[in-house]
Amino acid sequence: MKNPSAVLHAPHDLRIEDRPVPTPLPTQVLVEVRATGICGSDVHYYDHGRIGDFVLDTPMVIGHESAGTIVDVGADIDPGRIGEMVALEPGVPCRECAQCLVGRYNLCPDVVFFATPPVDGSIARFVAIETAFAHPAPRGISHEQAAMAEPVSVGVWACRKAGVAPGDRVLVTGAGPVGLLAAQVARAVGAAAVTVTDVNDFRLEAARGLALDARGAQEQLEATYDVLLECSGAAPAIAGGLRALAPAGRAVLVGMGADSVPIDVPLVQSREITLTGTFRYANTYPAALALIASGAVATEPIVTHRFSVEEAEAALTLARRVPESLKAMVVGIQED
Amino acid sequence: MKNPSAVLHAPHDLRIEDRPVPTPLPTQVLVEVRATGICGSDVHYYDHGRIGDFVLDTPMVIGHESAGTIVDVGADIDPGRIGEMVALEPGVPCRECAQCLVGRYNLCPDVVFFATPPVDGSIARFVAIETAFAHPAPRGISHEQAAMAEPVSVGVWACRKAGVAPGDRVLVTGAGPVGLLAAQVARAVGAAAVTVTDVNDFRLEAARGLALDARGAQEQLEATYDVLLECSGAAPAIAGGLRALAPAGRAVLVGMGADSVPIDVPLVQSREITLTGTFRYANTYPAALALIASGAVATEPIVTHRFSVEEAEAALTLARRVPESLKAMVVGIQED
Amino acid sequence: MKNPSAVLHAPHDLRIEDRPVPTPLPTQVLVEVRATGICGSDVHYYDHGRIGDFVLDTPMVIGHESAGTIVDVGADIDPGRIGEMVALEPGVPCRECAQCLVGRYNLCPDVVFFATPPVDGSIARFVAIETAFAHPAPRGISHEQAAMAEPVSVGVWACRKAGVAPGDRVLVTGAGPVGLLAAQVARAVGAAAVTVTDVNDFRLEAARGLALDARGAQEQLEATYDVLLECSGAAPAIAGGLRALAPAGRAVLVGMGADSVPIDVPLVQSREITLTGTFRYANTYPAALALIASGAVATEPIVTHRFSVEEAEAALTLARRVPESLKAMVVGIQED
Amino acid sequence: MKNPSAVLHAPHDLRIEDRPVPTPLPTQVLVEVRATGICGSDVHYYDHGRIGDFVLDTPMVIGHESAGTIVDVGADIDPGRIGEMVALEPGVPCRECAQCLVGRYNLCPDVVFFATPPVDGSIARFVAIETAFAHPAPRGISHEQAAMAEPVSVGVWACRKAGVAPGDRVLVTGAGPVGLLAAQVARAVGAAAVTVTDVNDFRLEAARGLALDARGAQEQLEATYDVLLECSGAAPAIAGGLRALAPAGRAVLVGMGADSVPIDVPLVQSREITLTGTFRYANTYPAALALIASGAVATEPIVTHRFSVEEAEAALTLARRVPESLKAMVVGIQED
Repeated sequence: MKNPSAVLHAPHDLRIEDRPVPTPLPTQVLVEVRATGICGSDVHYYDHGRIGDFVLDTPMVIGHESAGTIVDVGADIDPGRIGEMVALEPGVPCRECAQCLVGRYNLCPDVVFFATPPVDGSIARFVAIETAFAHPAPRGISHEQAAMAEPVSVGVWACRKAGVAPGDRVLVTGAGPVGLLAAQVARAVGAAAVTVTDVNDFRLEAARGLALDARGAQEQLEATYDVLLECSGAAPAIAGGLRALAPAGRAVLVGMGADSVPIDVPLVQSREITLTGTFRYANTYPAALALIASGAVATEPIVTHRFSVEEAEAALTLARRVPESLKAMVVGIQED
Repeated sequence: MKNPSAVLHAPHDLRIEDRPVPTPLPTQVLVEVRATGICGSDVHYYDHGRIGDFVLDTPMVIGHESAGTIVDVGADIDPGRIGEMVALEPGVPCRECAQCLVGRYNLCPDVVFFATPPVDGSIARFVAIETAFAHPAPRGISHEQAAMAEPVSVGVWACRKAGVAPGDRVLVTGAGPVGLLAAQVARAVGAAAVTVTDVNDFRLEAARGLALDARGAQEQLEATYDVLLECSGAAPAIAGGLRALAPAGRAVLVGMGADSVPIDVPLVQSREITLTGTFRYANTYPAALALIASGAVATEPIVTHRFSVEEAEAALTLARRVPESLKAMVVGIQED
Repeated sequence: MKNPSAVLHAPHDLRIEDRPVPTPLPTQVLVEVRATGICGSDVHYYDHGRIGDFVLDTPMVIGHESAGTIVDVGADIDPGRIGEMVALEPGVPCRECAQCLVGRYNLCPDVVFFATPPVDGSIARFVAIETAFAHPAPRGISHEQAAMAEPVSVGVWACRKAGVAPGDRVLVTGAGPVGLLAAQVARAVGAAAVTVTDVNDFRLEAARGLALDARGAQEQLEATYDVLLECSGAAPAIAGGLRALAPAGRAVLVGMGADSVPIDVPLVQSREITLTGTFRYANTYPAALALIASGAVATEPIVTHRFSVEEAEAALTLARRVPESLKAMVVGIQED
Repeated sequence: MKNPSAVLHAPHDLRIEDRPVPTPLPTQVLVEVRATGICGSDVHYYDHGRIGDFVLDTPMVIGHESAGTIVDVGADIDPGRIGEMVALEPGVPCRECAQCLVGRYNLCPDVVFFATPPVDGSIARFVAIETAFAHPAPRGISHEQAAMAEPVSVGVWACRKAGVAPGDRVLVTGAGPVGLLAAQVARAVGAAAVTVTDVNDFRLEAARGLALDARGAQEQLEATYDVLLECSGAAPAIAGGLRALAPAGRAVLVGMGADSVPIDVPLVQSREITLTGTFRYANTYPAALALIASGAVATEPIVTHRFSVEEAEAALTLARRVPESLKAMVVGIQED
């Protein structure tokens, strides 16, 4: 097969198919994918064939957290970039609308995002992408680390939205991959203390392995935190996290899953708590890659299992099959 | 009586008593009060004897939205200030704690606030106050306008928290005094469009009188607003207001009364809405007074009824007795 | 002539030529230009054939502050827009680079800007422009007012950079068109006091006509201003303006012309003054148009002289010929 | 001697005298000083008897970068604080003025600052200070590290003013104690790259010892930096540093010594560079102490020489006598 690709046809119907190798448009590069992390949204499409209004109507290549090497370039691109390692930012916005022009391109209504129906994703050997979204990886990091720039971006964006600053006390609820990465980003921007909570002992142990202060989710916390990064999507974590905020605290809802959640309005008012949610990220890749390259954010402990493209289905079912797992990574041909 | 004061002894037990004229401390000024607006919190203490954890245990002078004239000064203050018209900022913070030092003195846990038990308020002939909180009124405004700097401050603070900027579309839910003032502040800082909603026709008419776009609260609004200033305290207004926000919208919960309110988390996330609440205000008085003095914020149409100190009880019961009313003002001796 | 255009061949060599009517690209609209303001940079190209590194090597249509009516649309654009009045934002950035993606598209190194060599400008009957940069004019304003959205944008950007906020005291040095518009924008976003200085009595009179506090440039000002908007480009105005700033003051250098200017470092440090410069603007047109439409910014008193396209040379020489002038406007066919 | 103190009587006339042990006011604590760093301003008073308008008219205790242990408390303070290690923030503002109330207390015109004539400083055995300015040291750090919270605060403030963010490229001109600390703070808040320049090889070597990218001051740098932290006070460093900034770069002038410096206005405008200066700091101590405690900012390599109180004059002359020195520390009685 020239371009083996993991194609989702319907819930629980994933097939490895040979797709045509894309020809890069003038402003695109062609990338040989070397590593793609599996995200909860990939698993959700695999299980349910939809997320909200996004419905799998036609077969779609799955996966969106990728890095690889440029193997060809479009007519407008310097061929000298061939051979460069790049992290792929999976959403390419329209760059015409008011949100794009003001720099909030993650809110572009016309964004084209890997593995969001009907757009094909990146668990494939080859993908083409706009050059501006193929971010050069710093020297010395691996393709796998570069692929992790995607979930690290989620953490960078959360910290930016929260305005995490030196000396802040930060509470991260949820010690999954995103929580563990967001917690490290918070520490890397100078947070004085970072506490991570979860209901799962394996995940708490992973947090401790990263030298984070890990606590059981049931633990009652004093209202001393400046920032809440909610990464679990669990309604009780939102409510409890807000109560743990000091006056002028800032909360960012990152985790998905909660629907309607009761908010204690007098608490929000009397402490002047600021609450926001994140939707993907914008302008985060260079910072995420720099934090990975400096070692400030360790991604290796997060990647607990690896699979080939042909084993993509096993990667998508990992979380269900192996409770003691964090991030599944689909790796392409071996690193040199 | 030398210092007639409106003293609340218990719910529905208000007495006009002669209190000793205060002697200003070295850093205080003595002010002859000339106008004091009645706020919903005053009415709440009158009706219930408490607000949350603040309980009326001992008799307390009521009222906190005041302006007057300096008639004496403490030892450290320039006597040249005698005769100056001042708006009284009712909360004097500790100026020692972390919140005070960082400029968020409204969140000071040790603030001493007029008419918050057990601190006496300002419906009295004379009050003493720290000089830094007796703000000089600009030339040409009346004592009544100066007293309105308090609720205008609420609007200034709400707009500051929301980051209202030129070109913004602003939705104000609730056309009571605070809503009508906040809407005017939003317009005065360059908002391109300001819509005010309410369930009450009298209030909507008042909004129209201020050249605001007034709509019934039941009207379904398109999700085109950049800012929500929620001034009603009604749970449906919060939910509906959030739905009316465009991506990157900012909501500020000003109105009190709602307790636990369900928030649509996917909405907050997918639009990256920012939500916060306000607790009083900080560093707003000079701006509020300037907006009143320039005419950008009209306070006269908000003051629908006036009472003497001796009639303070009638002022406190106005809202219940006269549905077609907005702000009651207790006026001291006549303006010269 | 189908498309009469004002073409600059060399310094002082302006010719009215018939240029081909452009065919809009798929994402462009074709606009019949109805009003174009003359800016100092147009005059500079007319006089010197260059500004800094931008040199007139080939004939170029002059002018960049335009508004008009859409008369045709590209293949991707809704034909329903034909007949719409639009203000033309003269710089179209690449939307690929880091500056563009972060929302600072005015700093795009590859921007294509009207009448910046070798890009043709807009003193012509017809121009084609990317749809995202043809901003719908609010109801009720004239083409001339819409064209003024360009210099008003300069003022909006200056105020945004300065963070002008309610209650601020603002000093504007230079009462030319940009200064008079920036001063009005500052007032429209809540500035408590706006002082405008100039050496020219005619301009000071114009400032007074806009109800601004106008003072001679030689007047010594007390260090009480929160914001300096330097719109003269004169070195003494920069130095004097900085001295007039209170602690934490913010200065924005808008006016061009000064080269190397000595800055008093201990002053900047001891007062923690913030100083920046502006280069064009970004994301300002909707706000500028809203401020014009609301009447908060009056543009009519700024336009002192009008010319036809055929008289474009007279427009370019106005400032030299008629000292008592402000903005020259080149108008197309008469307003209906 | 009960309270040996280093008293400056005139330039080059420093005497160790026994001063009365202060009695703490009700809101003060009495601190036994254990470590005090020597700052350039101390040396300047020693050499010249003045800095600008601050003139040594009466004998004054020198020194202001101190830490110690609480040995007594005023009437309003919890005696449980006795025994606590504290870092002393040397400036106590009025907390009444507009600057204080808004949180910019470093700009308070009435601040009382250690060793700024006529206020006594802290090279003494005992000093009394307002409790809010005696910051508890985190567990595990030494008095010397706690004393270094003062110059680290300068770096925290500079980075805050510059808005240093993850991924930023930061240039620090001047590798003295402040430059080396500011560079470490920049790295600790996520800067992707930090370059330090100096003319002095010993200082560059110190920078390399801290794993910073150190370069000779004469080296021509590409215009790729997002932030300039100017810590040398040398006019050429300011000019060269500004040229090294990328578009939208932010410059902070920390170093003192430059007077009037020519600024390239077209550069500031075309790149929209923001320039500000710092005057001391506000609300930085907790963050500075946290960065020291986490090890993110190493202060030990900066302290190259130590002296007793009796040797204070040798500490003040160190920089002149020993070119290969950085920070002199006056240490009190030995650490337990």
